Amino acid sequence: MKKVVTIGGGTGSFMLLSGLKEYPIELSAIVSMADNGGSSGVHRDELGVLPPGDIRQCLVALSDSPEIMRKLMSYRFTEGGLDGHSFGNLFLSALEKVTGDFSSAVREASDILQVRGNVIPVTRDDTHLFAKLRNGKMIRGENAINVNFHVEKVGIDRIYLEPRAKANPDAVAAILSADLVIIGPGNHYCSIIPNLLVRGIPEALRKTRARIVYNCNLVNKWGHTNNFSLDDYVDAIHAFIGRPVIDFVTYNTRQPGKKLLERYQAEESGSIVAFDESARPKRGYRIVKGNLLSATFHAAKPGDKIAATRSLIRHDSKKLAKMLMLLLEIGDYESILKDIV
Amino acid sequence: MKKVVTIGGGTGSFMLLSGLKEYPIELSAIVSMADNGGSSGVHRDELGVLPPGDIRQCLVALSDSPEIMRKLMSYRFTEGGLDGHSFGNLFLSALEKVTGDFSSAVREASDILQVRGNVIPVTRDDTHLFAKLRNGKMIRGENAINVNFHVEKVGIDRIYLEPRAKANPDAVAAILSADLVIIGPGNHYCSIIPNLLVRGIPEALRKTRARIVYNCNLVNKWGHTNNFSLDDYVDAIHAFIGRPVIDFVTYNTRQPGKKLLERYQAEESGSIVAFDESARPKRGYRIVKGNLLSATFHAAKPGDKIAATRSLIRHDSKKLAKMLMLLLEIGDYESILKDIV
Repeated sequence: MKKVVTIGGGTGSFMLLSGLKEYPIELSAIVSMADNGGSSGVHRDELGVLPPGDIRQCLVALSDSPEIMRKLMSYRFTEGGLDGHSFGNLFLSALEKVTGDFSSAVREASDILQVRGNVIPVTRDDTHLFAKLRNGKMIRGENAINVNFHVEKVGIDRIYLEPRAKANPDAVAAILSADLVIIGPGNHYCSIIPNLLVRGIPEALRKTRARIVYNCNLVNKWGHTNNFSLDDYVDAIHAFIGRPVIDFVTYNTRQPGKKLLERYQAEESGSIVAFDESARPKRGYRIVKGNLLSATFHAAKPGDKIAATRSLIRHDSKKLAKMLMLLLEIGDYESILKDIV
Repeated sequence: MKKVVTIGGGTGSFMLLSGLKEYPIELSAIVSMADNGGSSGVHRDELGVLPPGDIRQCLVALSDSPEIMRKLMSYRFTEGGLDGHSFGNLFLSALEKVTGDFSSAVREASDILQVRGNVIPVTRDDTHLFAKLRNGKMIRGENAINVNFHVEKVGIDRIYLEPRAKANPDAVAAILSADLVIIGPGNHYCSIIPNLLVRGIPEALRKTRARIVYNCNLVNKWGHTNNFSLDDYVDAIHAFIGRPVIDFVTYNTRQPGKKLLERYQAEESGSIVAFDESARPKRGYRIVKGNLLSATFHAAKPGDKIAATRSLIRHDSKKLAKMLMLLLEIGDYESILKDIV
């Protein structure tokens, strides 16, 4: 079976893995560990465990458990002292306490949830995301960087992990032996880049013989990636990796409906990611275009306090997975491009 | 396969079921639903769910899941806002929220935990235990009745459920079709009697053709059952059932070690349950005597705030199960008695 590795975190990975799960491939999901928001943040602060939130979403996406168990893992308490706590996060945190370390907890959880594939924390180190803003101010923690009026107004200058973290050897091994590595989609500075900041991950991406695809985000995030074009995203990612490694970039050509667009602009103050082929020098990667847009409206679940910060305009997991599988299985690039564009 | 029904709750049922589980019988555990202490109490008050604590213990006792899942179900958080919460209770409460009712939650949990047998809440009604003390004062809630200086000093006069609760039809059906019904051991007023207060349970016990065994407690609880003898316990239970139904009573003949006895008396101010054959009129039930004492010292788990109220002097689950299985499989009463006494 072909080996496919995804790199990301959050709802982007959930969507991507939900689609890829249906194909006969060996899947490994490398997941960012910088989360300190909502239920995950409380667990980090109060229980001293690693952040379970992003891992939980990937486990649920890849679980073959009965529907009820998957529903349970995504359930959030909405009352009393447990208000806002995700049951799945409690499950992972209790498992970490019982097994003694987070990697064992993820392994046991994968077993209990009958997970198809491997879910791999990008690092086992306890680290936090920091942003230096354009005015010199420092912001600590993924959650504060993600949801912050100051960040929106001033803009991010530099992003880093503190203390520095080194890669989980399982993550490095997965990248090196992969046939296809898929980066994104996901919150650029809060889900994608935190993986590339981990020592050993850029090195593995430079070294692997896998084909590397980047799923470009559909929308920009204000204060983070204002007016970024597709090429700006690729350049930013390559800057963290240290040299150009991306072979393909998927790009959605379908415009969201007027209503969704209005709602999006009202709530998020961002913009649709642009790609203008006409005025553009030749690049080392190919653009794979198609309709990748989800037609479903994604409402926030009760108790999920950071859901409002997620984009309303999203990829369709089935369409995206289909496009990616074409890239994996057909060797002749030109014919793929013709098939899809 | 022979059908065996247990009636109880708390650690008494956990011990009993752990032993019975090893035999090829069809087991149904009827469980008291009056718990409102510790983690269960918080769930009742804050989440508006039925009390999960006693059910959880029975599920764990009968689970064929890997060790890790059973450890997880018994894990208690010891830090932050989750301090004292049992993960297993969170699991059942989240399942109740997701499935919409407690019976479905127990069924789904039994499935997930690969439970051997049926765990049956004695009632589906949301009810509370009340005690009227000898001085007329009313105490509300199992926890307050269980752990209360006032109760200890004054003593319980009457005990009842409010609002009145009717039996879960599954519990009635299990009793009616059983070959053996086992009552106790367990906290007399807080785990055993709350089952008999549920409308339909005494009726079923009077009607069933099952052999009925009562596992007499090893120790008395101060303010609850001061100086009760074995016969006093049986009389008290028969008063709630409405007529004598018990065929056998198991009685431990092994004295606890001096050290355990001292520790017990220092901590609990109770006494060993007495049985004096010499000065006693003939009764309708037979006493099955033997060494039923656990040699293990039962330390409280971290985070378990009501563990201190449990007895240190306990039944051995293997010895007790062995004695009960003799009662089930051999029809000739006299020969059993000879074997055991």
